[in-house]
Amino acid sequence: MENGSELEKWGFRGNEKLSAALASAVTVRGILMKLFESLSKDDPRPTVPLGHGDPSAFPCFRTAAVAEDAIVDAVRSAKYNGYAPSVGILPARRAIADYLSRDLPYALSPDDVHVTIGCIQAIEVTMAVLARPGANILLPRPGFPYYESRAAAINLEVRHFDLNPEKGWEVDLESIEALADENTVAMVIINPGNPCGTVYTHQHLKKIAETARKLGILVVADEVYHHLTFGSNPFVPMGAFGSIVPVITLGSISKRWIVPGWRLGWIVTNDPNGILRKLGVVECITSYLNMAADPPTFMQGAVPHMLEKTGEDFFAKVIDILREAAGICYDRIEEIPCITCPNKPEGSMFVMAKLNVSLLEDINDDMEFCLKLAKEESVIVLPGVAVGMENWLRITFGIDPSSLEDGFGRIKAFCERHAKKQ
Amino acid sequence: MENGSELEKWGFRGNEKLSAALASAVTVRGILMKLFESLSKDDPRPTVPLGHGDPSAFPCFRTAAVAEDAIVDAVRSAKYNGYAPSVGILPARRAIADYLSRDLPYALSPDDVHVTIGCIQAIEVTMAVLARPGANILLPRPGFPYYESRAAAINLEVRHFDLNPEKGWEVDLESIEALADENTVAMVIINPGNPCGTVYTHQHLKKIAETARKLGILVVADEVYHHLTFGSNPFVPMGAFGSIVPVITLGSISKRWIVPGWRLGWIVTNDPNGILRKLGVVECITSYLNMAADPPTFMQGAVPHMLEKTGEDFFAKVIDILREAAGICYDRIEEIPCITCPNKPEGSMFVMAKLNVSLLEDINDDMEFCLKLAKEESVIVLPGVAVGMENWLRITFGIDPSSLEDGFGRIKAFCERHAKKQ
Ligand SMILES: Cc1ncc(COP(=O)(O)O)c(C=O)c1O
Ligand SMILES: Cc1ncc(COP(=O)(O)O)c(C=O)c1O
Repeated sequence: MENGSELEKWGFRGNEKLSAALASAVTVRGILMKLFESLSKDDPRPTVPLGHGDPSAFPCFRTAAVAEDAIVDAVRSAKYNGYAPSVGILPARRAIADYLSRDLPYALSPDDVHVTIGCIQAIEVTMAVLARPGANILLPRPGFPYYESRAAAINLEVRHFDLNPEKGWEVDLESIEALADENTVAMVIINPGNPCGTVYTHQHLKKIAETARKLGILVVADEVYHHLTFGSNPFVPMGAFGSIVPVITLGSISKRWIVPGWRLGWIVTNDPNGILRKLGVVECITSYLNMAADPPTFMQGAVPHMLEKTGEDFFAKVIDILREAAGICYDRIEEIPCITCPNKPEGSMFVMAKLNVSLLEDINDDMEFCLKLAKEESVIVLPGVAVGMENWLRITFGIDPSSLEDGFGRIKAFCERHAKKQ
Repeated sequence: MENGSELEKWGFRGNEKLSAALASAVTVRGILMKLFESLSKDDPRPTVPLGHGDPSAFPCFRTAAVAEDAIVDAVRSAKYNGYAPSVGILPARRAIADYLSRDLPYALSPDDVHVTIGCIQAIEVTMAVLARPGANILLPRPGFPYYESRAAAINLEVRHFDLNPEKGWEVDLESIEALADENTVAMVIINPGNPCGTVYTHQHLKKIAETARKLGILVVADEVYHHLTFGSNPFVPMGAFGSIVPVITLGSISKRWIVPGWRLGWIVTNDPNGILRKLGVVECITSYLNMAADPPTFMQGAVPHMLEKTGEDFFAKVIDILREAAGICYDRIEEIPCITCPNKPEGSMFVMAKLNVSLLEDINDDMEFCLKLAKEESVIVLPGVAVGMENWLRITFGIDPSSLEDGFGRIKAFCERHAKKQ
């Protein structure tokens, strides 16, 4: 090993500026890592993971056999071993266009579709493309912190608008108008909602479109949880309002097929009036992707089969489990005095619950709650601070119902043990 | 469609600054696209693609059955459907460490390995990590233009050092010393070489290490063509000299397994003295990956099987075809007066040939040569300007030998047709 003075001869270093920007980013991954580190090794019980958005480890959430077949066939065909064009291979783009068009009042073309490495890369590209110098973007609070992290990495100013728990976590449209100025380029909505489990109505989405049009900004619609709905509101894609306002839809197969590790997503321009093309947005997406990493070609080759052949029975089974789990989640929260849930979740796999620390003896905030819960009960829950809401909790119900019951049993015991004595 | 004045109400645009930076980048993809556009649709002959580094479309280069099996088994196991840690799953990192350690005088640990989306993402991450403000990096000429493009995108200054065709395309070490200053952070070498088809000797690599040590810079070794050698020099990994100078090795399965579409690569720190860790380089790589897209988890799950079980017979077959094709390439170039090849290729799948335009009637440079060749003969060859050497050609022999013969027959006819009359 070389010692300090030996190190001086080297002229390179880790990029401190980059490290600092990245370190300042609050990531769900980073916080979950901390919670996992505080698990007690002496607890013989299985850890109950209620912090993440990845139910794939539970056998009841195993993906559709046809989805696996699609990859196997693509690999065995040896037709997809080579490099792909940077926007994706045509059959994949066409299949995604057709798949999404089923829910739209007009048909998408393959040229509207850009294949990405999951919705994560779709976010990265979209943020970079919109980040002209001086621009700002409106993000929901609570939200998905990767947006904030990306914005920080590329110096895109963020302004937060609140989602209102009293009104089913709808967007507070008046605050949007107050926040936007001539440098605002876009607002982001996540529907079905992470972290709130909401599904917006047709009417609310239309109002969002009209507000955005009035302000001259575009709507970025994160629909990674598309069709994961089990309440009274059906899923309506934001792209349905593409003739009111240009919409960039971000999505992936990660959640609906329960395969977040497969890393296949898309950026879709819902823009029947061609505004995004005329304003250079589409061209900029294409150039960015030209320099970026691609999803494996055989994954793209598998997409048509996967999107066309997955049966309704698979989707229905997933929805049934999520509905049951969401119900358990809501009911169990009701039984625990220090947490309350303003809205029964109707979509995605998350719910926000408000933590009343004044009822607890030795816990001062959501982070402390989650650290102690991990340590004492081997239950992982994400502190609200990770998604922009201090003293809330984000709880996932994307887990098999019996483990969820187990987890809530432990949360209840934990809260009773830490309750203030009357 | 909205007209011009209608467009004015929208406050967003494609990010012009980003578009400009990206557009200025010369990419191999971009130039190949131009050449493909100039193909004549009336030519009934098949196009002979001698411009790219992707032999996967040719049946003789079909990947090993065990490599396909590895993916199929990983997908069928349903164990790899979930998100992976950002540096990669441990079994993949361990397998890559073991695989690369076979050629090293010391053993790598899984902590030295970061899994990436092909070597392309490995380059992206490494350049970003080294690009502290004011830094410069030394790149080979001719080289692989993605390095230049990435550097431009992140404002990292590039200084070129020449590879010397008179000396087997070795690095001109004196010019390295002249180029480097106190802000130089690294030099990049590509071995086996793209575009020159060279394989550096143990002795030359050691001299590179000693020069870098003297200058206090690290060596980035792009070994994406590792083990694709068929001449007298065996492949020696730069990491063998890691105790002289810290080495960051970039690689992937793309070329050795002939599966560039599978998108699995690595960044490996060859650094037995722990310098990269102490100087924050490793930490910066990790933070960057924490925000970046990951390769599919099942691809990572397939890696151990693929690296451990692929038989020597597969590798030997590929090498035999490449050796034969390289020989054809060299011999046919000798028969064409206006192009000459200073060195018989001994590795990778490329060779550089010098174009003597003074022998041609109506062709002024390499780009024009390649455009006309595509149009008249349906043969794609990369102009040297794409890799930093005007009036050279980069020809790939990663194609089945009979197509290569066909292609050279057409190149010869083309050159004869355009030769200056004596
Ligand atoms: C709102 C939201 N957007 C995007 C993503 C990333 O999705 P993907 O797995 O497709 O990259 C997630 C993942 O949890 C998410 O919750
Ligand atoms: C020198 C060099 N580095 C990196 C790459 C990219 O490799 P990968 O396909 O693993 O991303 C290539 C591809 O041609 C290359 O030639």
